[in-house]
Amino acid sequence: MNFVAALNEATAKNLQILEEHLRQSISDDKFIHEVCEPLIRGGKRLRPMLFMLCANSRKDCPTELTMPLATALELIHTASLVHDDIIDTSKKRRGVETANSKYGAQIAVLVGDYLFAKAFQLVAENNYSHEVTLILSNLVKNLCIGEISQDKSLFVVPTMTEYYTNINLKTAIFLSSCCKLGAIISDMTEREINNLTAYGSGLGLAFQIVDDLLDFFGDANVTGKPQGGDLKSGVITLPVIRALEKSNRADELRELVTRGNVTPEDIDNAIKIIRATDAVDYCRTRAQAHIDSARINLPDTLNTSAILALEKLADFIVDRTR
Amino acid sequence: MNFVAALNEATAKNLQILEEHLRQSISDDKFIHEVCEPLIRGGKRLRPMLFMLCANSRKDCPTELTMPLATALELIHTASLVHDDIIDTSKKRRGVETANSKYGAQIAVLVGDYLFAKAFQLVAENNYSHEVTLILSNLVKNLCIGEISQDKSLFVVPTMTEYYTNINLKTAIFLSSCCKLGAIISDMTEREINNLTAYGSGLGLAFQIVDDLLDFFGDANVTGKPQGGDLKSGVITLPVIRALEKSNRADELRELVTRGNVTPEDIDNAIKIIRATDAVDYCRTRAQAHIDSARINLPDTLNTSAILALEKLADFIVDRTR
Repeated sequence: MNFVAALNEATAKNLQILEEHLRQSISDDKFIHEVCEPLIRGGKRLRPMLFMLCANSRKDCPTELTMPLATALELIHTASLVHDDIIDTSKKRRGVETANSKYGAQIAVLVGDYLFAKAFQLVAENNYSHEVTLILSNLVKNLCIGEISQDKSLFVVPTMTEYYTNINLKTAIFLSSCCKLGAIISDMTEREINNLTAYGSGLGLAFQIVDDLLDFFGDANVTGKPQGGDLKSGVITLPVIRALEKSNRADELRELVTRGNVTPEDIDNAIKIIRATDAVDYCRTRAQAHIDSARINLPDTLNTSAILALEKLADFIVDRTR
Repeated sequence: MNFVAALNEATAKNLQILEEHLRQSISDDKFIHEVCEPLIRGGKRLRPMLFMLCANSRKDCPTELTMPLATALELIHTASLVHDDIIDTSKKRRGVETANSKYGAQIAVLVGDYLFAKAFQLVAENNYSHEVTLILSNLVKNLCIGEISQDKSLFVVPTMTEYYTNINLKTAIFLSSCCKLGAIISDMTEREINNLTAYGSGLGLAFQIVDDLLDFFGDANVTGKPQGGDLKSGVITLPVIRALEKSNRADELRELVTRGNVTPEDIDNAIKIIRATDAVDYCRTRAQAHIDSARINLPDTLNTSAILALEKLADFIVDRTR
């Protein structure tokens, strides 16, 4: 678990407490627990971690205030993954069989719905402000709009702008919301809230670009997802978009990614074509630029150890292997 | 639209205003609007209607207070139908093609998620109490648990107790929550809140029993759903459970409903076997008993016209044809 190294001691400890809260949160119903326990087990906890780091970045925030919302954020993320796996018909997630593959789409749809509802229950039960519920409902809405827009254009090459709009809706708004929530519940100033939100947004864009790279070039045993999964489902991402601009085999790559039926050989071929261009470097450079912009946005009013942890976390986003 | 006849003038007018709020609520995104508009168009509006009737049953409640929550209730119901149609692989709902059939499971999952999130956004934006969010998240959770438990036992004959547990989770808790919310936002006493909740619960049980009858004996052109749809999907309901207890062709019926592959001829046969027993009368009697219990629970502190409307609504629940 690479990320933990990036953290200050307090957040590392909070993450341990979070695991207990997550287990508790799915224990209302025996079957829900059985389905969700393996799904919840393997996550990176990036969203609650970001939230807790930000919440504790100027002064210590009591765990009674952070835990329920941290749990809600991870439940929303898990719900979206469960529903995503119905969409992708992926067989594996976080290294284990998906709910869709194991129990069928019926159960996967309902378990995802349950987790969404549970997240909103936690927020209501713990008397967070309406602004918190509003931020959560907005991030779910944006996530859906991003995914819908992606699904409507499978096997179609997006423009750079369309790609960025999409990863913003799908990922960056979620991560920036985690930071914003951390800043809000710890009573930061408007400037601090905006700056931490911008930090999260840069992190989110970088995170998704690295995710899209890992889909091609990651080790399936480490990522827990099959290699070339995006291409197979028709999702065309930055490495391909860049390679199409630069490769002398662009026509071949375009035919391959838009045909609508991607074989394992196609994935191997796509990887070779992408590797022969500057696409990997280009994606890394873009991701790094977003990380740099994220770091610049960190408010100087935070305490030194928090700034260090948030900077380290940003670096791990680009260096991660899963 | 039979239900409108059951209402007092004020609620009938409120229902018209609700239509505008519902249209507004799905207009954030063009594609979401395109998918949801036909889905939202044909509903009975039973849930928001119940909520508004209760909210206005002792004194007039301002529409600014009722409309956002009434809209949220109908959005949650619509979201659950959209997800239900993925599960049932039904082709039609409310007389129009389902989102699942028209756009595929991917879009249907995401559109449902969007509608859930939109409902919680409306609640947060309009400063309802945490209790309101809690009731909404609990009803969604119970709905999911009910549906999951149903899906785990497709083509298995439930006991009477299992059937009742299920329709309580799936339907009665939703309708009783609508009544409870109406009572809460209009500042009723605890006794009034409990009584209106019990009214809604009786209504909900009756509603689902009638629904299960209509699935066999309703006119598909009126219900907007194909006849015998439940049996086809493996959902075994009260008419079958009762017929299995009473019919001299019980073995044949049991084989037919548990085989796992239901043909149109099977549905015709099941209907004949059920009709030859007292099952239809039995179901009607059970539904009527729940309606009677609902009516008895109506608090006598409500104003006369509200009591009349809530009583009429209860009667329509058993008399309805869709």
